[in-house]
This record gives sequence, structure tokens and C-alpha cells, in this order.
Amino acid sequence: MSAARIPAPLLEAFTAGCLRAVGIPADDAASVAGLMTEADLSGADGHGIFRLPQYVKRIRSGGINLRPSIRILRERAAAALVDGDNAMGHLVMRHAAQVAIDKARSQGVAWVGARNSNHAGPASLYAKMPLAHDMIGLYIAVGNANHLPPWGGVDMLLSTNPIAVAMPADTQPPIVLDMATTVAAYGKVKTAAQRGETMPEGWMIDREGNPLTDPARAAEGFLLPIGGPKGYGLALVFGLLAGTLNGAAFGKDVVDFNADSVTPTNTGQLIVAISIEAFGDVAAFKRGVDRAIDTMHGSATLPGVDRVRVPGERSHAIRLERETAGIPVHAGLYAALEALGRELGVDMPTP
Amino acid sequence: MSAARIPAPLLEAFTAGCLRAVGIPADDAASVAGLMTEADLSGADGHGIFRLPQYVKRIRSGGINLRPSIRILRERAAAALVDGDNAMGHLVMRHAAQVAIDKARSQGVAWVGARNSNHAGPASLYAKMPLAHDMIGLYIAVGNANHLPPWGGVDMLLSTNPIAVAMPADTQPPIVLDMATTVAAYGKVKTAAQRGETMPEGWMIDREGNPLTDPARAAEGFLLPIGGPKGYGLALVFGLLAGTLNGAAFGKDVVDFNADSVTPTNTGQLIVAISIEAFGDVAAFKRGVDRAIDTMHGSATLPGVDRVRVPGERSHAIRLERETAGIPVHAGLYAALEALGRELGVDMPTP
Repeated sequence: MSAARIPAPLLEAFTAGCLRAVGIPADDAASVAGLMTEADLSGADGHGIFRLPQYVKRIRSGGINLRPSIRILRERAAAALVDGDNAMGHLVMRHAAQVAIDKARSQGVAWVGARNSNHAGPASLYAKMPLAHDMIGLYIAVGNANHLPPWGGVDMLLSTNPIAVAMPADTQPPIVLDMATTVAAYGKVKTAAQRGETMPEGWMIDREGNPLTDPARAAEGFLLPIGGPKGYGLALVFGLLAGTLNGAAFGKDVVDFNADSVTPTNTGQLIVAISIEAFGDVAAFKRGVDRAIDTMHGSATLPGVDRVRVPGERSHAIRLERETAGIPVHAGLYAALEALGRELGVDMPTP
Repeated sequence: MSAARIPAPLLEAFTAGCLRAVGIPADDAASVAGLMTEADLSGADGHGIFRLPQYVKRIRSGGINLRPSIRILRERAAAALVDGDNAMGHLVMRHAAQVAIDKARSQGVAWVGARNSNHAGPASLYAKMPLAHDMIGLYIAVGNANHLPPWGGVDMLLSTNPIAVAMPADTQPPIVLDMATTVAAYGKVKTAAQRGETMPEGWMIDREGNPLTDPARAAEGFLLPIGGPKGYGLALVFGLLAGTLNGAAFGKDVVDFNADSVTPTNTGQLIVAISIEAFGDVAAFKRGVDRAIDTMHGSATLPGVDRVRVPGERSHAIRLERETAGIPVHAGLYAALEALGRELGVDMPTP
């Protein structure tokens, strides 16, 4: 598929315009559009502007509170529970991250959970927020649709509950790990289906336990967790930490936000901010991360592998490229956005 | 292999006796022996009495400080860095867990790292410590030997850096996830080699990237991370959090404690205690965990699977069985322990 390149500021302005057009106050629309564009810049293509039509649909269906009161429900010196009041998830988690950073500055570490939130884009967005404060960020979320059964089971009771960890380096880009607890995220399956490609064995199995490689048959099977029972265990405990502990949805209570645009999702997420200075010298830590990166880069490689990478490296390179060349918008998405813009009276920028 | 069954209290007394015989003060010997026996009771067979000969060897080689001053080096309200002073790792992490629990009681959450520690047994031992205080425990460690290359690489720069998370339920046993970031722990490879068994594909590859299934050839290859680049990413960030952030060994600095019994390992570990009450009602959370367990148990299963389990369930069943029937000690280990006991003047209990 061909992809038009749109400069990030133009795409961000378009996104903000659409969000304003469906009733989101200007400041909030700007915040959400900024984070969505940051997702696209970082290469999280399934979590940026790609989601705009779905967000707009949910907003128009009354599934999002446009005048939310995002507030702290419960608080300790190093912990807080934020009620998102069914706001756009980006607003909830930006707020939660700020609370975590403020508390970690004085307490060393802070853990902030959220309930009544919504889909907030890629996990890395929030894990990266503490970086500017010489902190490490850790983010965990309950995913917004169940595609994963418990290990050995066939009932889809779990989401791909992701984790992201971001830590600053000295001269190198930060290490940013952002991963689902399944071998493939469900978005990859959808992309393979769109492109008519076959999936590798190991992504999905059918209800008999046989490999499922035809993405058009995805509805007949389910995703596989990383490391079998281990990935299942991670998805389960991440779900309990980000969902149950926060009084948010988990298991059968998770609302499939692809199929249902009305029911509040009560999405649960959490962010931990860790002040490096609480454990040692900040500059020494950053040099240590640089050294770790150099060490990994220095590894000899398997046949056919050009070089070893570290998490976040590819995303950083994509960011540099897209800041200059613009964000690629594939033809199908471009048409959908153009139509959405026409409907809302917002001009989709031309490539 | 046949296994003698030894009642846990007798095995614990033997372990404590051996540790005292090589110079560990009685109180510390009792603490370490108690935790090692708890590891065996919980089914972590590679992390309990199995390690005693190796611990004794390191102690006799001067590789452990028998009169350590375990102390807090750096402290914030919700964070601390503990210096283990090259003590037995069990003593360091028991101390660190207590600091984390005390801080979490007042601050809601606390994160305590350790440096200059040593091998401390299974990760679950420490993650479980907060449970008795209505807290969730999370433990991460840098492993004590590098068996994992970065993804795409062939240089073994990472350990199987494990994570454990424990959370209390109401009527059900607690959920206890304890996992390496590799598909198989290295101990499983050793066990397969001892038993002359073939390993399944997916555990290890050789330096050409081909599956390695003969455990006798383990030295020619390396472990595979769960989910390929994802498990590599987890091992890397866990190593940086538990190692580098604490000023402990990571990467090339990790001492292979199987090969070297003298050099201080400067092992890094971390524990996080999360007070449930900081986020909501404790009883409601525990009922939520029960409900999650029931939901997973209720899943229909794949052909050939009797039922779905949750993390910690097998270990809990083993514990109940072993508390009654005793801890199984395989013939080879029994002979080694008997010989060790003879040397140290401590009688190995007879089955």
C-alpha cells in the first residue's frame, strides 16, 4: 500500500480539530492530539491517528465523558488512585503520570493507578513521561479487548495486557521497552489480514490447539502468550495490578471497545515513577545504561543478523525520520480520515 | 531416580547445622536454612537444599562475608538502597523486604533495591513476604550467571533475570508468579542432562541459530528468551533495574557463581511492596482475586488439557503434600549432602 507523508504538526492540528468538532474542549483536544501524534512519530502506527475514527465514533455515541472531573480518589505519600471519570484515556494517564512524577520527586518512588479510564494509546507514551525528570517510568494496562485465553484454555478471558519501561541513557537514546504479553499484538493480525499475508506459526492457535496462520480465520482462534504459561502469568498479574487493584475492569468485565462504542470501559492502567537519585548518582546511572547499550551492541551476531539492537532503538530512528519526512498515512486510512474530516468540517492535510 | 523423603524440620536443622559449621552465626544460619527449606517446600527444587554444597564451597572459599553489616545506604520515604555487604543473599533480601514492608505501610508503596548481595534462592520467597501484611510483593533479580545473549546475538551478556509477583486472595491460595525471562531456566537444562533426556525445541539454540536439543551440548549454545525480542527486552530492563540502578553487577560484570566461588558477586535484587489498602478495600481486592481465579478455572480447555491453573497453584499443592510427606531428596543429592554432613560433623537425617 502506498503511504502519503503528512508533516506531524499538520496531522496533529487535524486530529485536534476533529476532536474539538465532536465536543472535546480545546485544551483537552490539543493534549490528546499531541499524544496521538507522538505515538505516530514513534512508530506505534496502530495507536495514533489510526484510532481517530474509532475515538470519534465512541465520543459521538456518548461513550466518553467530554467534561470529566479527573481526580484523586485515594492517596498516600507514594501512592494514588485516580478516577478518570470516563475521560479520554490520554487525559487520565497524563494526569496520573504527573501525580506519579510529583510524588516520586519527594518520596523516591510513586505508584499511581487509574480506574474509569479509556484506551490511551501506546504504553510507551506514559512510561516515557518520567524521563525528563531523571526518572524511570513503568506503565502497565489492561487491554481493551480480550484475545487471550488462560494457558491451556480456550475462553478469551485476558487481554494482551502490555508493559512499558523507559529509562534514560547518557549519550544514547533512552531504552524504551513496550510490549504486549502475547507473541503478536492483535493489531499485527489485523494488518496481516488487510495485506492478505500468512501469519508465522506461533502467533495464534485454533480451538483444537493447532497453529492458525490464516489471519482471515483469526476469529476462530486466539493469540498465544509469550513463553506459554509465563506470558499467561504476566497477562494475569498485570491485569490484576492495573485492573482489579484499581477497581477497574478485568477478565469477563472487559468491554471490547472495537465492538461496543457506548458502554463505559472502566479501563485500568498504572504508572510507576522511580527517581534515579533516590538510589544513586543520576549521571552514573545514565553512563551505566550507555555502557549496557554499548555492551549489547558489541555482541557478535547469529548468521543473517546485521547487528544487535536495544528496545526503543528502532522507535527512536523512526522518530527522527518521521520528524523530517512526515508521518506515513496509508491510502485506506487516508481516505477514511479525509471522509471523517469532511463530515466534521476539518480539512485533512494533503501530502 | 529414587528420592528419599525427609521431613522439612529435619532438613532445615541439617542445613542450619552445616551453615553454622562453616562459620555463619546461629541466628543467621537459622534464617537462611528456614528460607532454603521454604524453597524446597514450595517445589523450587533447584533453589533450596540443592544449593547447600555450592553455598558451603563459596563460604569456605571466603566468597561470603560471615559477619556482614547489612545497612541502608540511601533512603527516601518510599525508596531505599540496601548494601548487603556480601552477606548470604537470603539475609540481604529478607532485610530489604522488611524495609519495603515497613515503608509501604506508611507510604502506600515502597521500592527497595540491594547491591553487594548474593544468590538468594527463588524469587517467590521474597515476593511472598508482603502477603502477610495485606500487601502485594514484586521481586526482580539479576541472575548469577549469564546464559542469554541479546536477541540476534551470540555473546552471553544477560542472565535469565527473573521476576516474581505475589498477591493475596480471599479463600484461594495466593497468586504467585515466579518466572525466568527465558523459555527454560538453566537448572532445567542441567536436570535434563543428568537424566539423559532430550530438550524440546525452543529451549536453546546453537551459535548457528539451530535448535539445540541435546542438553549434553548445552555449553555450545544458549537459552532462548520468552517471546524472542520481548524476553530479551525484559531481561535487559530487569537487569538494569535490579543491577545498574542499585550499583550492582550487570552484563559483563556478572560473576558466574557456578564457576567462581571467591569473587564477590555484587548481586543486585529489588523488592516492591504495595499496600492494597492504599488503593481500595483489602477484602474487596481479595474477593476480586478469588473471582479472577474462579474465572480462569472456569475456562473450557484445549483438547488434552484437564483444567486451567493459575500461577502458584501447583507450588501450593506441592507445599501441602511436602509438609506431610517430607521433602524429596534424589539419590545423587542425598549422597552429596551425606558426604557434606560427614565432613562438617552434621548428621544428614535418614529417610
